[in-house]
Amino acid sequence: MKKQLSVKPLLFPMPATLVAAAHDGEQGLITVAWIGMVSGTPPTIGMAIRATRNTLRLIEASGEFTVNVPRVGMEAPVDFCGIVSGKGVDKFAAAGLTAVPASIVSAPLVAECPFNIECRLVGVQEMGEYRLVLGEIVETHADEEILNTAGKVDIGLLDPLLYVPGTQEYRGVGPKVADAYVVGVPLKERM
Amino acid sequence: MKKQLSVKPLLFPMPATLVAAAHDGEQGLITVAWIGMVSGTPPTIGMAIRATRNTLRLIEASGEFTVNVPRVGMEAPVDFCGIVSGKGVDKFAAAGLTAVPASIVSAPLVAECPFNIECRLVGVQEMGEYRLVLGEIVETHADEEILNTAGKVDIGLLDPLLYVPGTQEYRGVGPKVADAYVVGVPLKERM
Repeated sequence: MKKQLSVKPLLFPMPATLVAAAHDGEQGLITVAWIGMVSGTPPTIGMAIRATRNTLRLIEASGEFTVNVPRVGMEAPVDFCGIVSGKGVDKFAAAGLTAVPASIVSAPLVAECPFNIECRLVGVQEMGEYRLVLGEIVETHADEEILNTAGKVDIGLLDPLLYVPGTQEYRGVGPKVADAYVVGVPLKERM
Repeated sequence: MKKQLSVKPLLFPMPATLVAAAHDGEQGLITVAWIGMVSGTPPTIGMAIRATRNTLRLIEASGEFTVNVPRVGMEAPVDFCGIVSGKGVDKFAAAGLTAVPASIVSAPLVAECPFNIECRLVGVQEMGEYRLVLGEIVETHADEEILNTAGKVDIGLLDPLLYVPGTQEYRGVGPKVADAYVVGVPLKERM
């Protein structure tokens, strides 16, 4: 039996990412769970950030940002970056995180996050009290320790943190269930 | 040591959702992992779909769609809906899934998915070979069995399917790691 829950911003699960930007000597760092891929040609990320957030101001001023995927164990700094405003605060230091230079953009990478994405801002759209920020991916980085023998990110080794809206909790990923583009083939062949 | 992986549409993890639409007696069903929240005021979902996909045509024609969150165990039909085109095919029947009426929109809900979102189309944006589809959430539904005593979705009971890009696999969610808006508070108090 289905029950109506009314209008709520729920989707299960969400990634818990750390988004960084820098401008004019100032660094910003913010937790973003409202994020996803919005195109593959070229690879482009979309994310929603409250219009009042300091890191958004740095993204718009510099035209660049990074998306950093934290791992399980980083839930305290990830949570901290979501509940504290960055105005006049060195959030990297306060969270115990390390800013390292990216390869292309001016925004720093979060060293402790095993996977990092560099983005160039390609669009900003007003969405009520939020802005939808679109960034073209210009480089990705992974810690060597999380790559499998084929050079791809092993998500078991990455062990990324998830955000669960509603009950407001952080979780890890579970075990592998099936291979994509494989497990559905028998249904296709039966057509 | 970080290694550059070049430009790839990677983010870890992604939700694996089933998006449905209907128009003029035709139903469409497609797997979408490139999806996320793009605003909270009002709650709005953004998702990227290849411009050639049949379900996109039905979304644009009807101005409505549903997002359905499948659970672990549904990986075969989820994968099937991603690899097969819906033109001239009853994908619900072929995937062994059940279309049930939504409460507000014309698009059906997927009965087997324990969580469902009804959306009204509010924007479509060309993004290379993809379109970024924006939908305002007008209702959400959950199976009663996945609600906790506070009436919120218990993600352990929902047991949603995740999609992992790169290694192309489906996974479930792992155990709870921490409470959001709680675990970061000690870092804030230390400031």
